Amino acid sequence: MSVSPEVFLAMGREVLAQQAFSTLLGAELTALSAGKVQLELALTDQLKQQNGFAHGGVVSYLADNALTYAGGSAMQVPVVTSEFKINYVRPGVGERLIARASAEAVSKTQAVCRCEVYAVANGEEKLCALAQGTIVKLG
Amino acid sequence: MSVSPEVFLAMGREVLAQQAFSTLLGAELTALSAGKVQLELALTDQLKQQNGFAHGGVVSYLADNALTYAGGSAMQVPVVTSEFKINYVRPGVGERLIARASAEAVSKTQAVCRCEVYAVANGEEKLCALAQGTIVKLG
Amino acid sequence: MSVSPEVFLAMGREVLAQQAFSTLLGAELTALSAGKVQLELALTDQLKQQNGFAHGGVVSYLADNALTYAGGSAMQVPVVTSEFKINYVRPGVGERLIARASAEAVSKTQAVCRCEVYAVANGEEKLCALAQGTIVKLG
Amino acid sequence: MSVSPEVFLAMGREVLAQQAFSTLLGAELTALSAGKVQLELALTDQLKQQNGFAHGGVVSYLADNALTYAGGSAMQVPVVTSEFKINYVRPGVGERLIARASAEAVSKTQAVCRCEVYAVANGEEKLCALAQGTIVKLG
Repeated sequence: MSVSPEVFLAMGREVLAQQAFSTLLGAELTALSAGKVQLELALTDQLKQQNGFAHGGVVSYLADNALTYAGGSAMQVPVVTSEFKINYVRPGVGERLIARASAEAVSKTQAVCRCEVYAVANGEEKLCALAQGTIVKLG
Repeated sequence: MSVSPEVFLAMGREVLAQQAFSTLLGAELTALSAGKVQLELALTDQLKQQNGFAHGGVVSYLADNALTYAGGSAMQVPVVTSEFKINYVRPGVGERLIARASAEAVSKTQAVCRCEVYAVANGEEKLCALAQGTIVKLG
Repeated sequence: MSVSPEVFLAMGREVLAQQAFSTLLGAELTALSAGKVQLELALTDQLKQQNGFAHGGVVSYLADNALTYAGGSAMQVPVVTSEFKINYVRPGVGERLIARASAEAVSKTQAVCRCEVYAVANGEEKLCALAQGTIVKLG
Repeated sequence: MSVSPEVFLAMGREVLAQQAFSTLLGAELTALSAGKVQLELALTDQLKQQNGFAHGGVVSYLADNALTYAGGSAMQVPVVTSEFKINYVRPGVGERLIARASAEAVSKTQAVCRCEVYAVANGEEKLCALAQGTIVKLG
């Protein structure tokens, strides 16, 4: 495939816009290239748990989806997340969550990807979670 | 602690009601005892991805939260999910998702728990995902 | 495939005998059927770490190999372990380690399997570790 | 703690020498600083499986132990591996395996660490496996 970086990002955003759940959470694709992605969301009240932190499910959603984009953009075929693991290392406190993922080992049938999720408070990023997973070619 | 099963479940539901994100997703706690939990949600359109299946983030939210309840109800102290892994084994298709989790190894400081997530279509349950993770005592 | 249980187990043992590393560790296949396996070893001094417990690498070897047997016997094609995670829940103390694994979700291309590893001391089994992983068809 | 890099490495090697299983496998600690480690071994025939590749259990041993060293050297207290996950991405073929691990998120009670395992064939390193896990303070 040979499209400009702008078109590549626009294509990625179209896919995201088709995911009703991503729209519900307000996810934004802010960077995308082959095997590399940045996915963010504003940490609104409805994404929190009882202590006012980002709900773990929001952090894992962001990691899962970022891993999928990293793998899909590296393989450039329709993909699905096969599995992942996530370690939460700090409560998600602040205005935004930013997930950055990259494909670390890519074959024709799968990509093993890693992701870090950061919480942004007063403009400062703090690491919240680390994930690793397998993205596989669909069908 | 010595409360009736009904009160124990009601206490769990109060915690869930305080999680704005769980309310947003429509999660329902349908069973809870020490180390055992069932957590469900109706698979509405807003919880889906571009192919009409449950978004992976919804499945992982359910698994994550069910693991936390299993660990918290087993340890009966405030807890947080430290980490978990999830394997998706079938698209989440149907009317509902049901997660069942149990605490498999409990100590004073942590519980290692397992969870299965099922999709219910036309009244039939099919296994969608398997998860395993660590719930730790808060603080 | 239609062989007797005895022949099925004997076939599994032949594969194990071809794994030099399994021979080095003294692993024994004590039960095998489609999607179900029991793999053991005597906890000799050379398999321990500095505190006299089973080295984590021995426990993870046993889990990894048991997962592979569970998946391979369920799929009945040549397989390889794609990934797994393991939670250690208790030091491996005693005379033997026993791993029991089963295939939980099997398709044509992969099997998601679970495993528990027990330490046997004075005839009593104690849960040491829980694992979950993906076994994939080779090639 | 304030020791020279040489003494720090020597201390790490003393611990390794006390692990009978690490001696059996021929593991060598070739670099160690706070939160960073390199652990290697010669890929002898006894560490292989039936296809002549490094047995998965050898690769996971190396990852597990490297994660523990990364966490322990970062926290500088006695530690134990609580859990880890590993993705195998290529058969371990060649003369040596090299694991490099680092502590990515360190608190007083735990360190989340990552590791890559490489196989060295004819002097060229190829990525074989990626791991991520939690190292916790003992007791």
